[in-house]
Amino acid sequence: METKLANNPVADSFILTGRNPIREALKSGRDLEKLLVQKGELSGSAREIVAEAKARKIMIQLVDRSRLDEIAPRHQGLIAYASAFQYSTVEDILHLAESRNEPPFLILLDGITDPHNLGAIIRSAECAGAHGVIVPRHRSVGLTPSAVKSSAGAVEYLPVARVPNMNQCIEELKKKNIWVYGLTMSGTDYRQADFSGPLALVIGAEGEGVSSLTLKKCDMLLSLPLRGHIESLNASVAAGIMMYAVLSGRGR
Amino acid sequence: METKLANNPVADSFILTGRNPIREALKSGRDLEKLLVQKGELSGSAREIVAEAKARKIMIQLVDRSRLDEIAPRHQGLIAYASAFQYSTVEDILHLAESRNEPPFLILLDGITDPHNLGAIIRSAECAGAHGVIVPRHRSVGLTPSAVKSSAGAVEYLPVARVPNMNQCIEELKKKNIWVYGLTMSGTDYRQADFSGPLALVIGAEGEGVSSLTLKKCDMLLSLPLRGHIESLNASVAAGIMMYAVLSGRGR
Repeated sequence: METKLANNPVADSFILTGRNPIREALKSGRDLEKLLVQKGELSGSAREIVAEAKARKIMIQLVDRSRLDEIAPRHQGLIAYASAFQYSTVEDILHLAESRNEPPFLILLDGITDPHNLGAIIRSAECAGAHGVIVPRHRSVGLTPSAVKSSAGAVEYLPVARVPNMNQCIEELKKKNIWVYGLTMSGTDYRQADFSGPLALVIGAEGEGVSSLTLKKCDMLLSLPLRGHIESLNASVAAGIMMYAVLSGRGR
Repeated sequence: METKLANNPVADSFILTGRNPIREALKSGRDLEKLLVQKGELSGSAREIVAEAKARKIMIQLVDRSRLDEIAPRHQGLIAYASAFQYSTVEDILHLAESRNEPPFLILLDGITDPHNLGAIIRSAECAGAHGVIVPRHRSVGLTPSAVKSSAGAVEYLPVARVPNMNQCIEELKKKNIWVYGLTMSGTDYRQADFSGPLALVIGAEGEGVSSLTLKKCDMLLSLPLRGHIESLNASVAAGIMMYAVLSGRGR
């Protein structure tokens, strides 16, 4: 895993239009960010594609025909956005930590919607020696072309996994003795935390922060001190500061 | 200075077209990011405006008439971009440190061209308790609307100064016993630096980093450890990590 990930970037085209290309993409196991489906009655083959996408837990949005017309001609009622890079799994991430003989160091993102922030966080995680980034399937940006570009190549080296349910993912990590730190406004000063063991950092969106349900799942809540009037840092900056604190806390 | 800066945001309009509006803006002392001037013979009044802009060290670009036509109608050969926020001076920044009875903590930016990075850096600087950000007048982004927006309101509290020559500015800061740290690829590990005294951090653009001439002016060069394959962090992330190291190094 010290070389580039086997999962290479998919082809240049990120918008798939029409039934055949989308069916083929699903068949080949290609990751899709979302599927736009025209409102109203669907043909049999379109229904099959939507059912398959649902089974694969791909986000489905019902939209007016005019919206599809704006995006591409000859869409046959279906437009899919392919991921700009193949996702890994949580197991891949844990395996990377194991293969390096290091305690796992994971970044979990909750509700990051700006692709530039996601890309910058993946880049920082790779630089800080983390083992992977986990994003939720819904209400968050995934590996879009902008996110991949902002990662400055880091997606080539760092596994990024997508999970259907972040809270369930946290429960499973805790069962593996991974300590889960949530970043929030009113936690313990991050400089008091012990980062030497297996751990996951949960970073939330700017504004809302980590959702309250997810915060409750965390083992410990941490905060960055704010010495001015502004009440939060940019999400990717906050994530970078936390990750470098982990790196230092591990004596690296 | 613990309340909002007296310099309020200027009006909504950031593009000034034609001789009269630009002359009035110059007269009133309003900050301009740059002045576009139509190539070829200029009228007497236009020549006066260009001379005044030159004296005020505003960046002047000679462009084809068609370029001006694209931006605005009835430009009379001149289009100016007003700054989205009024600049402070280096003296304002040093005065803020003095009024807080703290050793100066300044951020100097060298060649940052992405307004989102500039805005995020201003935001982080405000959060980390720095006293101001200094940007060069040329080859760098200034307080454009995007930069001001990305600062999340931090420009209201943190003075941002613009200087004609960064190297000269560094010389002057050094005369005031401010220790200048440059961030580069091959410096001392930042965790070994003493941040307790008066200091300035010089942060360069992604890719090029701090220019070699500016690096030579620095008292000490620092680096962030990189534990992966990617060779640099996003500029605003790197700046944020450094600033929080200063905050911690000062026991705050």
